[in-house]
Amino acid sequence: MLDVCLLGTSGMMPLPKRLLTAFMTRYNGSSVLIDCGEGTQIAIKKKGWSFKPIDVICFTHFHADHISGLPGLLLTMGNAERTEDLTIIGPKGVENVVNSLRVIAPELPFKINFIEINKNIEEFIINGYKITAFKVNHNVTCYGYKIEIERNGKFMIDKANEYNIPKKYWSRLQNGEIIHEDGKEYTPDMVLGEKRKGLKVVYCTDTRPLPVISEMACRADLFVCEGMYGEKGKEAKAKEYKHMTFYEAAKLAKAAKPKQMWLTHYSPSLIKPEEFMNEVKKIYPHSYPGKDGKSLELLFEED
Amino acid sequence: MLDVCLLGTSGMMPLPKRLLTAFMTRYNGSSVLIDCGEGTQIAIKKKGWSFKPIDVICFTHFHADHISGLPGLLLTMGNAERTEDLTIIGPKGVENVVNSLRVIAPELPFKINFIEINKNIEEFIINGYKITAFKVNHNVTCYGYKIEIERNGKFMIDKANEYNIPKKYWSRLQNGEIIHEDGKEYTPDMVLGEKRKGLKVVYCTDTRPLPVISEMACRADLFVCEGMYGEKGKEAKAKEYKHMTFYEAAKLAKAAKPKQMWLTHYSPSLIKPEEFMNEVKKIYPHSYPGKDGKSLELLFEED
Repeated sequence: MLDVCLLGTSGMMPLPKRLLTAFMTRYNGSSVLIDCGEGTQIAIKKKGWSFKPIDVICFTHFHADHISGLPGLLLTMGNAERTEDLTIIGPKGVENVVNSLRVIAPELPFKINFIEINKNIEEFIINGYKITAFKVNHNVTCYGYKIEIERNGKFMIDKANEYNIPKKYWSRLQNGEIIHEDGKEYTPDMVLGEKRKGLKVVYCTDTRPLPVISEMACRADLFVCEGMYGEKGKEAKAKEYKHMTFYEAAKLAKAAKPKQMWLTHYSPSLIKPEEFMNEVKKIYPHSYPGKDGKSLELLFEED
Repeated sequence: MLDVCLLGTSGMMPLPKRLLTAFMTRYNGSSVLIDCGEGTQIAIKKKGWSFKPIDVICFTHFHADHISGLPGLLLTMGNAERTEDLTIIGPKGVENVVNSLRVIAPELPFKINFIEINKNIEEFIINGYKITAFKVNHNVTCYGYKIEIERNGKFMIDKANEYNIPKKYWSRLQNGEIIHEDGKEYTPDMVLGEKRKGLKVVYCTDTRPLPVISEMACRADLFVCEGMYGEKGKEAKAKEYKHMTFYEAAKLAKAAKPKQMWLTHYSPSLIKPEEFMNEVKKIYPHSYPGKDGKSLELLFEED
């Protein structure tokens, strides 16, 4: 099961009733956080999710509303007695930016490993998460993230018996391990059926619409997409500041056909996103306004 | 009139219902902010006070819970179209720390002037505020702040007439200006009575008790003092981490006799500060538990 939560939905600045846009996932005891603005730790606390298992933090870009909460979060993770290494993924310069912010959080009980994204599309496998960063189009270097939980094929008992594989290795083979014993090699493909459909979530904010976004979000279980403006007449502003309108996001969703599309990163001037949803749903019916703390439990499909 | 607001009351980390400790004053169109943790801009917005007139930001010390909200606040002040210089006052190194945090807020439409405190007690006069920083005792260099609005003596019409001072100069003299006209000099002391009682507010957090705190808070209109722990048995912890219990704060108040003492900077483990107030009030009756957004309008005494 993959738990996901849209921690906040505000863009630019945190508001009393709308915290900054950030996204968190939980899978198999390991959490991934994408973006961490001022107040993201409040949103995590409000949701009741734990700070300690955050193993990876991905940054879309270095505008303050997406990273200003990092020093506070790191200290709170330290107070939660985390000692395991933390991985931070972000655009070129991520280590410098984080170290600069750490002027107020210099001592932590865990090590930080940095991964700097250099290509347009880059893939990382961490703790069962397949994370793909893809470059988008903002006024600074910015990435969207696809998070996938892949699922092995079904374990075929008859094949395992056919190859005389001892039972004690079955679960390790099911988890993708290769086993060596007495000069013999047992590989997962010997006992696993065809790969089954996994889970896919795409998070994308601070960008103009791009074909790569729809490609990444294609048939995703959830597509979280920025929609800075809902009001008509804001198209030019969206273009100028390299953001999207609700309708541009919906068009990306229409091309990608995710099970659900959630809007987020609302302009502080946008009071009620719900008001514009009728129009949005005309473009893509499975569109919803993101709300702070909105979450979903994603399950693998039945066999 | 001096408006004051305790923006938050949490210590260490912001909580969903308790933002980090910070204090703001408004006087004559100019605001002073003391400390700016993660979420302080949310508290200001919640209170409905304006970002634009913040002319001075004072930092007690550089622990993250007192400064982590600065980059976001600076950007929000910029978005509020502030263009006037901002003064930032803090312990030695303030310019370095702020510039390091500004890695995510490099471009602002206003200039920042830094004042580094070097002595144990230092005084600054800005926009009618008399701000006194006084060194306290924490595990890093830390200062408390006294904010005073001084009040000139009453204007004596009979004296002004006696000296034949033209009426057009009366208000300028009342405001403390010296006037030169046709080789004559008119000075405020010619027409003003004895200095009257002004207003005094003291804010002091992250320290062990010290005599200087009571001296500064002596007969203040408001004394805002840290009280990290209310529960009995936390005295040793308070000593170890260089904080205070509610009762230690109350003893400082007892010596200082302010009109009111508000506790703040509660430990995240302290759920209901109210529960301990009976005991606190036995030490100093005018003690109150600070609450997020608690404010006061301080008026000059009637003549």
